[in-house]
Amino acid sequence: MAVRTTLSLSSKNYSSWSLRGWLLARFAGLDFDEVMLAADDPTAKAEMLLLAPSMLVPCLRHNGATVWDTLAIAEYLNEIKPKAGLLPADRAARAHCRAICGEMHSGFASLRSALPMNLKGHFPHYKVWNRAQIDIARVLQIWSECLQTYGGPYLFGEHPTVADAMYAPVVTRLRTYDVKVAHKACAAYCDAIMALPEMIEWIAAAKLEPEAIDELEVEF
Amino acid sequence: MAVRTTLSLSSKNYSSWSLRGWLLARFAGLDFDEVMLAADDPTAKAEMLLLAPSMLVPCLRHNGATVWDTLAIAEYLNEIKPKAGLLPADRAARAHCRAICGEMHSGFASLRSALPMNLKGHFPHYKVWNRAQIDIARVLQIWSECLQTYGGPYLFGEHPTVADAMYAPVVTRLRTYDVKVAHKACAAYCDAIMALPEMIEWIAAAKLEPEAIDELEVEF
Repeated sequence: MAVRTTLSLSSKNYSSWSLRGWLLARFAGLDFDEVMLAADDPTAKAEMLLLAPSMLVPCLRHNGATVWDTLAIAEYLNEIKPKAGLLPADRAARAHCRAICGEMHSGFASLRSALPMNLKGHFPHYKVWNRAQIDIARVLQIWSECLQTYGGPYLFGEHPTVADAMYAPVVTRLRTYDVKVAHKACAAYCDAIMALPEMIEWIAAAKLEPEAIDELEVEF
Repeated sequence: MAVRTTLSLSSKNYSSWSLRGWLLARFAGLDFDEVMLAADDPTAKAEMLLLAPSMLVPCLRHNGATVWDTLAIAEYLNEIKPKAGLLPADRAARAHCRAICGEMHSGFASLRSALPMNLKGHFPHYKVWNRAQIDIARVLQIWSECLQTYGGPYLFGEHPTVADAMYAPVVTRLRTYDVKVAHKACAAYCDAIMALPEMIEWIAAAKLEPEAIDELEVEF
């Protein structure tokens, strides 16, 4: 009997790690069922508030393996779907891709706490805290180096890779909080991410979610 | 002309990410030169104080590739030294290994800030903050599950893997701050890590370092 492949997710509006895991599974061409945790589930909420490690969200169950943590899911999917091109084919580019994915995975705490992902929200006059601005500058530096080196439209060339899944929530944050991107290639990159059919599908689903989590709604 | 393979490191006494990267390179059997950043280098210090991403430390330069971020270095070393067994051979175990490495990479902020790595220090009556205790409990749960599943003495069986490099600094913290480990298998695991020739060599070098970084010396 075939065992169902599942990916556990929490809020599509607020959970950036859910979005990353889901994009990876879609980019890989995986056939899977979504398992949605309730938005008021204490574990899911603690993870969104950056108070708990993301052990339950996203979590992939496939062929007897249980894989939590977004980077571990990415490597697993790359192993079972090698033709999907989740990682660049060139070894040095692949190392570069993993390095910037690692930076997103362990860093940018100020960006993440000051500008929480909120796909339904739009805050055109939001004042970005200085340390979050430093994070944004580093993100734009990472993007511009990749786009220049590999030619775009995605970070490592013609197809989305793990890096695009890792940075896609940042693109949505720049839109939500109306952060201007002066660098032309980076602005075009943001457009390319927002135009991905996967992003359009996810954001449409997020907008249908009724829940609002007060702690993740910014104040003016 | 052969290009020198280098690994940049900062303080051997204080920098847990330097230790992780160095252990990985040693476990892989890589021939490399250490490039030590001065302990008072602003970038190195910012990274040790958890104020900056670890882009410079550790950083591996090998065959034209520049690889920063510890997990990216681990995956790169696993690719160029596949026989070293840095990752478990079994796919589900490999996914498990990457998941707990991901948890260490992105999490345990309370443990890291409350109990900074300090190989020269010994603080037998240190009071561990409640949130750091929660982190320690999760680490011991991770270890006990691995040791039971894969039989020890290392987290994934007979040979050290990426996971042991990732968690080795935690073992030293438990020693430095005199945290009792009641779980027998976990206590034996701590002994096994401290007995690794690589750990003995690193710690001996750390003890010869003259610098003290005040911000990383705990107060009573």
